[in-house]
Order: sequence, then structure tokens, then C-alpha cells
Amino acid sequence: MTISQLLNDYKNKVITPRDVIAQIKVRITEHADNPIYLYVLSDEELEPYFVRLEGVDIDSLPLYGIPFSIKDNIDLAGIPTTAACPEFAYTPECSAFVVEQLIEAGAIPVGKTNLDQFATGLVGTRSPYGACKNSINPEYISGGSSSGSAISIALDMAVFSLGTDTAGSGRVPAAFNNLIGLKASKGVVSTSGVVPACRSLDCVTVFTKELSDIKTVFEIMNEYDQKDIYSRVYTPTEEKSKESFTFAIPKKEHLKFFGDDQAQKLFEEAVKKFESLGGKAVEIDYTPFDESANLLYSGPWVAERYIAIKDTITKTPEVVNETVRTIISGGDKIDAINYFESEYTLKKNRKIMDTIFNEYDFVLTPTTGTIYKIEEVNADPIQLNTNLGYYTNFMNLLDLCAIAVPAGFRENGLPFGVTIVADKFEEGKILDYSSKYLGV
Amino acid sequence: MTISQLLNDYKNKVITPRDVIAQIKVRITEHADNPIYLYVLSDEELEPYFVRLEGVDIDSLPLYGIPFSIKDNIDLAGIPTTAACPEFAYTPECSAFVVEQLIEAGAIPVGKTNLDQFATGLVGTRSPYGACKNSINPEYISGGSSSGSAISIALDMAVFSLGTDTAGSGRVPAAFNNLIGLKASKGVVSTSGVVPACRSLDCVTVFTKELSDIKTVFEIMNEYDQKDIYSRVYTPTEEKSKESFTFAIPKKEHLKFFGDDQAQKLFEEAVKKFESLGGKAVEIDYTPFDESANLLYSGPWVAERYIAIKDTITKTPEVVNETVRTIISGGDKIDAINYFESEYTLKKNRKIMDTIFNEYDFVLTPTTGTIYKIEEVNADPIQLNTNLGYYTNFMNLLDLCAIAVPAGFRENGLPFGVTIVADKFEEGKILDYSSKYLGV
Repeated sequence: MTISQLLNDYKNKVITPRDVIAQIKVRITEHADNPIYLYVLSDEELEPYFVRLEGVDIDSLPLYGIPFSIKDNIDLAGIPTTAACPEFAYTPECSAFVVEQLIEAGAIPVGKTNLDQFATGLVGTRSPYGACKNSINPEYISGGSSSGSAISIALDMAVFSLGTDTAGSGRVPAAFNNLIGLKASKGVVSTSGVVPACRSLDCVTVFTKELSDIKTVFEIMNEYDQKDIYSRVYTPTEEKSKESFTFAIPKKEHLKFFGDDQAQKLFEEAVKKFESLGGKAVEIDYTPFDESANLLYSGPWVAERYIAIKDTITKTPEVVNETVRTIISGGDKIDAINYFESEYTLKKNRKIMDTIFNEYDFVLTPTTGTIYKIEEVNADPIQLNTNLGYYTNFMNLLDLCAIAVPAGFRENGLPFGVTIVADKFEEGKILDYSSKYLGV
Repeated sequence: MTISQLLNDYKNKVITPRDVIAQIKVRITEHADNPIYLYVLSDEELEPYFVRLEGVDIDSLPLYGIPFSIKDNIDLAGIPTTAACPEFAYTPECSAFVVEQLIEAGAIPVGKTNLDQFATGLVGTRSPYGACKNSINPEYISGGSSSGSAISIALDMAVFSLGTDTAGSGRVPAAFNNLIGLKASKGVVSTSGVVPACRSLDCVTVFTKELSDIKTVFEIMNEYDQKDIYSRVYTPTEEKSKESFTFAIPKKEHLKFFGDDQAQKLFEEAVKKFESLGGKAVEIDYTPFDESANLLYSGPWVAERYIAIKDTITKTPEVVNETVRTIISGGDKIDAINYFESEYTLKKNRKIMDTIFNEYDFVLTPTTGTIYKIEEVNADPIQLNTNLGYYTNFMNLLDLCAIAVPAGFRENGLPFGVTIVADKFEEGKILDYSSKYLGV
């Protein structure tokens, strides 16, 4: 299922949006043992979305009848938003700004997907609705926090899905399920109607199987929202990919694969592939990325997570997932001095980013250094999660954009992914290099 | 003394830079009862600056032989920086980046000027070296924190002077001494080599008597500094003044003059003058400005002031000015939650600024609502200072630029000033409207 295939089939009357949703519902039932969807719209709830398309020229709506899934920290009008905490749940009257844009473009919401509670995690196991299982090998984690959104695409339960990404939640589950995940620059996609994780950093992201689909959806998503205090007018740079280019990779001693030799081999292959496409790889010091990444969970941004769930964590701490509670509960003990000192570190590192992205066309990293089994994460939930964030946690703090793309499979069939990183507003460029890399 | 006059006189050999400095030293001696300069360069210390100009084509240096004074929280190589706290003092090896730029352009540093200690104050009374006296009526305050810098210009002890401006220190003393004070957008003038007040907000500013001089100096000052983590590339907008324009003023019930009827009358006259020049005044809600301003001293930015003087305030609190100590000493008790909640308020208000500066060519306010006697400020140092910041404290928090210009005199001879406010990077526009207003 791709957007262009479906639009074509709709035009040729091979199939209808109702048929597609009916097929999706069958697939959802087939995977009932995997807690992917927390809510699937009933036929009655879906009816207005179908009715709205009747008599409309298919060519007039870029997402006519395209099914999509929504991470359950993003509002869909009339459907509960749980953020994977049933006691926190509320039923919004309006959809999130970005959901409205997509529906206006013709897309049909299938339902709300499971997540690491309050979008706090990169694993997919931190949900009272159960751990999401990897779409390829159910012993392994799906990645998170946008776990259900990613798997719903991998298992053809939607054509695109919305995730969020504060630490890496829009990229890690892409890597673990052989998908593409685009985390655009902060503020480019509205977060109005999204349960905040770290409000100053949160991004809404999109997962697809096909690169062309992610481009189509992103075009619709990047709409300025005057009501979102963090919204920025999207001012894309004109930069595209070049015939001959230079890309930066972390120097050898800064690369971490946590013993996953096959991941290391797959990363080296990805580097070689970019070289074969006209690229010159240059090793750079990864310290500024790592130093910034470390601030996310050991610094003042934990206070933002605290603000987001203050009522819940103070009044009914027992309803908060134990690991999430451990991470967030100190959020009221961090001082403003810590904030400013962290800001100074980030500003210093951001200057280094100016230099790096001036000098190199992009930075290439593994999306994660490795992948874990669900039982491994359960045994050591915080450290293994930290390991998974080594290549992702700095991204929003340093105001960069990134795309996670598939980069082959380990011998056991599990996928590996790489991330192409560029400066804010350079989405066009990283999409272009993804196209080169994927050969599409 | 103006830049063009002096350059002309130098070219015609009417006078030499050595003569000018000698005359200035006489004037400094004549005002020995006013603690304006904390340090005046000796003839020996001045010698290299004179020697450097010998044989140089006057036309090749825009500030050839122009004397300037430096607020004593900005480094001048080899001369102590005290920040008005002798126990804090150090002697820097290098000059501040901006000072270097000016010296390279031919300017000659006369000395270092008094200030409210650690640039914390708008009054000019918070210095162990004594309260600066107003240049027009010595019973009145000079304004601060760049007190000495402003008076040194008013009393012809330099042609331009450097101040800093976090809360309004580059504007309030301009208003009180009938000067022009330009506070450019944050990051446009380097703060490398400046003792931080609030490092994330501090700006280096300039005072002159003449508008043309401030333009000349600003052209040299706005140089990007890779080593300043807050430096931004100056990307001025093309906007200039218009024949017919619209400007916003705070609505009547939001204007505060603290009983100073003459200030009110002078502000109304300034509004009328802009109307006579083609402007249409529109009253706007001042709440977003006021709400933002209030965060500066009651919110997390006090933590930044604490960071800046942490060693001094923890180890030797007795050397810190009592009022300054009262303000800053709670800086380690503010939590990161307070920071983020304040940031949300600012981001909300910044969105309102987008609308305001889209709709109006500029905002016009009094620079201060009133002026006080030194003894009045001594009796109630914190509240009266707060009153003086009503029209200034929001400026850096909301990322705006501003110019304070003279706007007539009260019957008792004390000057009044207005401030022209525009969006970041719109310095060209506010300089242009100042020119219109001042008729120069």
C-alpha cells in the first residue's frame, strides 16, 4: 500500500476507501496479540470520513482515502487520548492541528496507537497496555515511544502514521521495523493538540514504508500554526543533494554498537554505499553530540516532563509506569541554575553545529547502535534505553532535522537503520540524499 | 564633539587626538565630585593608541582618533575590570571583542566607567564608588546601570561610550541625560569579554549625542563573533521608514508616569510629533510587554545573575552591594520548572510580538515613566528601580531592538526620552524613524 498506488486504484475503481479500511481491520484482528492500536475507530465513527470524500474529485485531495494511524498522545476529535495512561485520558473536542490538516487533505484516521507512556522511552515496553512486539521478530522490542505507530505501518495497518519525537521516538522505531521516519525541524509541524513530553522540544513525526509517501505527507504537515507557541514558519533551504559530496561520521572510537558486530558491519556498508554514490566520508569528533544528548535525561528537561504530567504524578503516582516515574519524579528538584548552565553548553555545541553543517553536506550515524529483546529491556529498563538514545537524544536540543532510513538486515532478520542529519530547515536535502541512498 | 567634526578637524590639522584626550582629562578633573570614570588611562597607557594612528590615512579609519569610554564590565586589555566590585576585579589580557573592533577602527579608549554593580540596576546609585549624579541636575539619578558611560558623553568626556543592556541599562541613562542609546538585537554585538549579568540576554550598547555617530559606531560593532555562544549573524531587514506609517502606543490605562504629569505631557507631544510626520498612532494592549517584563527580576533570570557572581556572593557576600545582594541572593532557590513555565509565557507573548510588528511599523513608549532624586532611590531602592523598568525590562526577553531618543525637557530642566521599539534585526528602521523624529 502506497499513496500513489491507492489513489490510482481509487481512480480506476479497483477498490474503495471503505474496502481498504475493512482489510486493515482484518489485519488488526490478526495481530490482536500485539497491543498496536489502543483504539480503532468503529464503522460509525469512520462514516463521516467516508461521507466527506463522496463526490469529491480524487485529484483535488493529495491524501484522498489514505488510512493513517495516530500515536495516542495526539488528539483526534471525539476519541480518547490516553498517552498510554488510562487514568490520564481525556476526550478532545478538536483534533490536533496537524491531524486536521491531514484529514482536510483526505486522509482517514484508523485509530490511536500504543506508545511508551507519556512518550517517555525509546523502547516500546513502557505501556500499561502491554509491550509492543517488533514487527519482524516478536521477541524483540518495537522501539518507542511511537511504538504502535511504527508497527501499524510495518504490518500494513495504515499507509502512514504520526509519531512524536523528543529524544528519538520518531526514528528508533523506524530503524527497528525497517521503515522511514522523518523528524523535521522543531516547530515546523504544529504540536497543538499533542500531550507534551518536553514542550520546548517535542516534534510530530511521520513513518512510512516509501520515501515518496513521506514527502507527500510532510508537504501537508509543515503548516505554520499561530496557536502553537513553538511553531516556526517553515523556511526551507534550497539545498539539494550533490553529485559529489562530503558527509561526516563519528570517528571510530566514538561509534558505539554495544557489541552488535552486525550493526557495525551494516553501518560500514551504509558508509560505503554513500561513498559509491559520490560521497566522501570524514570522521568527526562526536563529543558535542554526546555531551548534548546527555543533558536530555540528566538535565533540566526532566522538569518539562514533570510539568507535563504534574497533576498525575503528584496526585496518583501509582498510575504512572514505574520506569517513567523513576525518570520524571525528580523533575521538581532541578534548579534554574542547572537550566542556564545546560543552555550555555548547548549554545556552545550549537556553534560547533554551524561549523559542521557548513563544512559537510550531512552527518551520517547509525539510528541506534543495537537492538534488544523485550526481556533484556525489562531487566535493565533505563540503561538500555540510554544506549538506544546515543545517536538520537541531541537532535532537538541542537535544533537539527533528521531522517531514519532502512539500511539492511542482520543475519537474524532484524533490520538496521541509519540516520541522515542536517541543519534545521534542510529537510529537502536529507530527503534528497535518502532518495539517492535508497535508489528511489 | 561629533565623529565627523573631529575627523574633519584632524584632517585640517586644527587639532590632534592627543589634544582632544588632554581636553577630556581636564573635564574629568573638573567633575571629580561625580564618580563617572573608575579608571582613566594614563598618558603612558594611551601612548600605543596614539602611536598606532601615526602615519595612517585618516580616511581609512572610520573612528580615527575618536575617544570613547567603556562601561567597567567590559574588558579593555591591561586595565582592571571591576564591574563596580573592587573585590571582583581582574585585569584582562585581551580586550572584549567589540572593544577590539572599535580600536581597530581607530577609536581611543579614555577609560572605564562607573555602573550599578554587576550591571544590576537602572538607577546609577548601586556602586561602592558612589552614586553617579545626573549630568543636568546632580540631585537626580543618572540612570543605570551604564551610568558613567552615559554621563561621560553628556559631559563631553568621550564621543561615544559602550554600555550594556539586560533590563534597560543602555536606554534609561540615555533618557536621563538627553542622549541617544541604541540597544541592538541580542547577539548582534558580541559580548565576549563582558562580565555577564544575564548571559542569555546581555547586550552591548552605545550612547552618543548625535544620531549619525550612533550609526557609524553601530556599523562597526555589529560583527559576528564565533566565540560568543550567543552571537548571531546580523541579518538586517531592508525595512526603512515610510512617508505614511502606523505606530503602536500602550493604551491610556496601561501608560504609567507615576505622577509625573510633565513626563506624560512630553510623551503626548512625542506622539503628536510622530503624527505630524505622517504617523498614525494606534493604542494597543500592553499586557504582553508588562507580563514579560515582570519575569526578569521575579523569575528564573535571577538564577543567571547568580551564576555570574556565584563565587563572590557565596564566599564574600559582604562585598556585594546590599540591594544587588537582596536581588540576586535567591538565585539558587529557583527551580527549572519556573524556568520552563516562564519560557512558555515568553513564547506566547513573542507570538503576539509577531502580530504587532507585522501590523505596526514600530512601538513607541516613554523610555521611563519618570525620574527620581538620588535620595528617593536610596529610600526605596528596589520598587523605584522596578518603576523605571516598566518600559524596558521586556525588550531582550522578547528579542526586540530599541533606540532611546531625547524627547524634550521638563520645566525643571530634566530631560525626557522616548523609545522606538521594533522587531529583532530592524535596527535600520528604528534609526531611520529616529532620524525623522529628531529632524536630522
